[in-house]
Amino acid sequence: MSQVKEEFQQFYRTIAGSRFSDWLEILPAQIAAWCLQNRTELDKWQKLLGKLPSLKSSGIDLLNQVRVGSETDVDDYTRKQIIGLLQQFKPWRKGPFHLHGIHLDTEWRSDWKWDRVLPHLSPLRDRNVLDVGSGSGYHLWRMRGQGARFVVGVDPYPLFLMQFLILKHFIGDADVYQLPLGIEHLPPLKQFDTVFSMGVLYHRKSPMDFLSQLKGLLRKGGELVLETLVVEGDEQRVLLPGERYAQMRNVWFIPSPAALEIWLQKAGFSDIRTVDISTTSTDEQRSTEWMTTHSLQDFLDPEDSTRTIEGYPAPIRAVVVAQA
Amino acid sequence: MSQVKEEFQQFYRTIAGSRFSDWLEILPAQIAAWCLQNRTELDKWQKLLGKLPSLKSSGIDLLNQVRVGSETDVDDYTRKQIIGLLQQFKPWRKGPFHLHGIHLDTEWRSDWKWDRVLPHLSPLRDRNVLDVGSGSGYHLWRMRGQGARFVVGVDPYPLFLMQFLILKHFIGDADVYQLPLGIEHLPPLKQFDTVFSMGVLYHRKSPMDFLSQLKGLLRKGGELVLETLVVEGDEQRVLLPGERYAQMRNVWFIPSPAALEIWLQKAGFSDIRTVDISTTSTDEQRSTEWMTTHSLQDFLDPEDSTRTIEGYPAPIRAVVVAQA
Amino acid sequence: MSQVKEEFQQFYRTIAGSRFSDWLEILPAQIAAWCLQNRTELDKWQKLLGKLPSLKSSGIDLLNQVRVGSETDVDDYTRKQIIGLLQQFKPWRKGPFHLHGIHLDTEWRSDWKWDRVLPHLSPLRDRNVLDVGSGSGYHLWRMRGQGARFVVGVDPYPLFLMQFLILKHFIGDADVYQLPLGIEHLPPLKQFDTVFSMGVLYHRKSPMDFLSQLKGLLRKGGELVLETLVVEGDEQRVLLPGERYAQMRNVWFIPSPAALEIWLQKAGFSDIRTVDISTTSTDEQRSTEWMTTHSLQDFLDPEDSTRTIEGYPAPIRAVVVAQA
Amino acid sequence: MSQVKEEFQQFYRTIAGSRFSDWLEILPAQIAAWCLQNRTELDKWQKLLGKLPSLKSSGIDLLNQVRVGSETDVDDYTRKQIIGLLQQFKPWRKGPFHLHGIHLDTEWRSDWKWDRVLPHLSPLRDRNVLDVGSGSGYHLWRMRGQGARFVVGVDPYPLFLMQFLILKHFIGDADVYQLPLGIEHLPPLKQFDTVFSMGVLYHRKSPMDFLSQLKGLLRKGGELVLETLVVEGDEQRVLLPGERYAQMRNVWFIPSPAALEIWLQKAGFSDIRTVDISTTSTDEQRSTEWMTTHSLQDFLDPEDSTRTIEGYPAPIRAVVVAQA
Repeated sequence: MSQVKEEFQQFYRTIAGSRFSDWLEILPAQIAAWCLQNRTELDKWQKLLGKLPSLKSSGIDLLNQVRVGSETDVDDYTRKQIIGLLQQFKPWRKGPFHLHGIHLDTEWRSDWKWDRVLPHLSPLRDRNVLDVGSGSGYHLWRMRGQGARFVVGVDPYPLFLMQFLILKHFIGDADVYQLPLGIEHLPPLKQFDTVFSMGVLYHRKSPMDFLSQLKGLLRKGGELVLETLVVEGDEQRVLLPGERYAQMRNVWFIPSPAALEIWLQKAGFSDIRTVDISTTSTDEQRSTEWMTTHSLQDFLDPEDSTRTIEGYPAPIRAVVVAQA
Repeated sequence: MSQVKEEFQQFYRTIAGSRFSDWLEILPAQIAAWCLQNRTELDKWQKLLGKLPSLKSSGIDLLNQVRVGSETDVDDYTRKQIIGLLQQFKPWRKGPFHLHGIHLDTEWRSDWKWDRVLPHLSPLRDRNVLDVGSGSGYHLWRMRGQGARFVVGVDPYPLFLMQFLILKHFIGDADVYQLPLGIEHLPPLKQFDTVFSMGVLYHRKSPMDFLSQLKGLLRKGGELVLETLVVEGDEQRVLLPGERYAQMRNVWFIPSPAALEIWLQKAGFSDIRTVDISTTSTDEQRSTEWMTTHSLQDFLDPEDSTRTIEGYPAPIRAVVVAQA
Repeated sequence: MSQVKEEFQQFYRTIAGSRFSDWLEILPAQIAAWCLQNRTELDKWQKLLGKLPSLKSSGIDLLNQVRVGSETDVDDYTRKQIIGLLQQFKPWRKGPFHLHGIHLDTEWRSDWKWDRVLPHLSPLRDRNVLDVGSGSGYHLWRMRGQGARFVVGVDPYPLFLMQFLILKHFIGDADVYQLPLGIEHLPPLKQFDTVFSMGVLYHRKSPMDFLSQLKGLLRKGGELVLETLVVEGDEQRVLLPGERYAQMRNVWFIPSPAALEIWLQKAGFSDIRTVDISTTSTDEQRSTEWMTTHSLQDFLDPEDSTRTIEGYPAPIRAVVVAQA
Repeated sequence: MSQVKEEFQQFYRTIAGSRFSDWLEILPAQIAAWCLQNRTELDKWQKLLGKLPSLKSSGIDLLNQVRVGSETDVDDYTRKQIIGLLQQFKPWRKGPFHLHGIHLDTEWRSDWKWDRVLPHLSPLRDRNVLDVGSGSGYHLWRMRGQGARFVVGVDPYPLFLMQFLILKHFIGDADVYQLPLGIEHLPPLKQFDTVFSMGVLYHRKSPMDFLSQLKGLLRKGGELVLETLVVEGDEQRVLLPGERYAQMRNVWFIPSPAALEIWLQKAGFSDIRTVDISTTSTDEQRSTEWMTTHSLQDFLDPEDSTRTIEGYPAPIRAVVVAQA
């Protein structure tokens, strides 16, 4: 498990001398417990990770996309080898990534989401940034591309950590990290300049506790960027779907944007602005060769694309920016 | 602290031989921590409790009211002494109680609430019953009056435990208990036949966690009796008030009855029925000589009694019955 | 696991109303953890326990021996069935027991030890008594036979608990208990009138911690009865054997009686008296049909019975009585 | 508390990238708890520490003594100021130190002890070294003077940490650390090349647990250097003094060198050698102007200096070296 372990040690070393040093009082014990619990899986993936070739890249672009090198950096044989390895880390949900000519086309066009969010952010340059629910880590690289100094993602799933480490292998940037934690494991550090949480709120059984936790992570005056499912309606409009919503289990409260603003206010945020509302299209979320199971199209009513197959309003997503 | 401690020991002894014996794995440690934390306060009240006279009562009525003895059981001097002691345990919110001719007139006419709830219950005879948020314990005695075999209330406030113990002193019934716990301290015992929670849901930051906890306390097929604030509206109607609602801090989600039924369904309950919806009147909740501070009248808009002074809809309460 | 569980519940109920009620703050959680850890083994033994016949006994003698009923209580077939069950709980080390004509002849003549100890004890009548390291529980019954009111043994091994429960099944006495705990799990209850610990001290890596724990279990003025291996010598004589002593691993400090008295004094005991010193004979500890592996004879130097096969002094045991 | 805190953060950063990184799983939480518990005291001392002047030193000698700079580095006024500060950190037990011409003459001539120990050590160059019970940290500097790469002392007393930090302030060497921990807080790191423990064993209630803990800190093949009080005698000679020994409370087992060797063997050490036995003289341990209360002379029998005032043998100390 040494490669994963080294990654965590590097993180500890980084925070030990920073404003985040108090985190050391609980983080290493949590990580050790997680490693123990996922040992078998980690060992397997660790071996695959070790097979990734070390390549010189002809350039990295994190500003307009997540691209490492180009097709000419690498011979066909090696490219096929890399593709073979990447395929063992399927499903790839958040992306896309361009790795030495390989187009890793993911279920989500996460770049489109980024383009909707970016214009509304306080500039990320030199900021300490957290992304809660970072998945494969796609947005972490885009944050770094905007000049953020220190970028941390948290996501509890082992697969997503592995996908992140693959990208880190190719990109080779030390100050971007992902930790296998849920938000409930994070202490109220009150130190991040910007906290993102995109696509998580509706998965939380207690949205108000979630918003309080996000607030506890931000320094006074820091910025929250929250993206989540919404429904249309006024301040008192909140949908709690039944067992499934668009085939997803584990979907809880879906508020209207107006209700969400009230929630944020109650959680202690100020200067709350809904900066974008978009219907998720089947171009933005769809099956690809890197995510071959069902996707949005299969979750909508075939007769009426404004409804999920359970009869709820089809997914609309809002971006809200607020100040801690 | 011996009297309070004896009460808890009696509870341990009772459950040790019952289907609730697993509770002993965590309860005594929680109670010990609570006693330690509230030591000073408990010592003070313990002394007052010890001054209550032991009286023979000419009869007890728990069926139609909570009444112990009558005016003729006790001389004027003793009655004044008792009144003086009772006044030190103000405010008295839930009642009323009749103790040897003393009419302990509380803020709430909890008997009215009971009269609305009772016709819709599965008969309580011989059932094991829990009341989450039992306050002074008024309804515990009414449950016992209906023949429940074993009655337990939980409420975290020390004052309410003391009020309960005063009543227990006069009533002298061993199989009714109150514990100083919040619901978050209760393990999923899956053993109660009926669980009541009246006036608590809107005080919970996470209503869905609260409903799951209530379900975890009931045996399969057991009955939940939930009373809470509601607003008018359809399944997707939920009010989250700002800092205060009717002057109360700590008010979170207030759903419509239709939304509440969806919530209960999502929490795994079935056979869900809203059996009563009533506007709380200023006759039912008001200041008395035993609760002398502001009450409902002061919390409503003086110009429009259908609104709280914050402009929200005035309190409406629903009773919902469901099966675990 | 219900029979074992009922036994523990009965214990909880007993202490809940007694001076030992504080024990409930930690005991049930420990017992639950132990049951979980030993589940498979307990399930197996539980089934065997359930096969023991319920018999009427023609009399019980705990005063002069541990004898239940007589040969005539039971037919040959049943006796063979019982013997078959008892044999599955081998090895039987502490005894002997006489059960409806079955002579359960154990490795140790624990009755001889009892006869050496008994004359030196404060009378046990009506006392609360603890035996640390009670093994099969033989001495618990003899303590009860002397009129002790409440008798508790602790021994961490599951097999010994089972042997105890077999005896309890036949004897049918409710106020004698055995708990599967090591002394390190016992809180400083300061409540027992007499605490026995026979054959344990030399198995403890830290004898001074052990003596402090024993003291913490006794009420002020209570009596300790300590039996342990000793060597000859003055106050500064202490043997720490190498890897094994008389083939036993896990033997630590063996003091002289004079050194042991100093230790007890340092641990806060007073009125310390060494009341018996005896060489263990191969008549007192030997193989039987109920304990068929090697015993003392095999652990002594065949050429020189005053030496163990490792060359240490052969076992001498002292009994020391002291006051807390 | 920032200066102390920075010291700990620097330590975390150092180990995060080393073979000691697993220590982060428990250390920061322990340190945080310690800081919280000693907050008032730390705040007071923190202020005094902050007043120490930053001086250029004309040279540092850790090889032959612990000397920083010389008398000419600093004017009289500043020297008096430093002396005034140092005096607030009395009593100074382990030393001596020479700081810019100030002769900090401590109770103990710890340099004499070092001179006795040093010839018997495996060379310390490039080794990771731990000193359990490091006091003011005197020997840490001498270990560093021998070329040790990474030197850590542990001692639970806040005062000793402060004395250490004063020296670190003047010496300015980053790779020497002291942590406010008892050995019971250290996990079995199995990583140190050399572990010292001088003057601790006889303060431990359980010497065998202590030796096991020391072994758990050493890498396979690492070296233990143990210095402790001994008595004369054979393998079975062990003194347990009464309430006090040479006026010290908290003195437990004092073995003969031969008994100590048996103990070490039982704890799993090999190649055990007693390399020095010395009677502590009243020249080596005595009152000074930096430690003005009673010292050894006052603890010996005035008529017979081979006895303590309690009548036990006067202090003899042995140094034992062993391999893990």
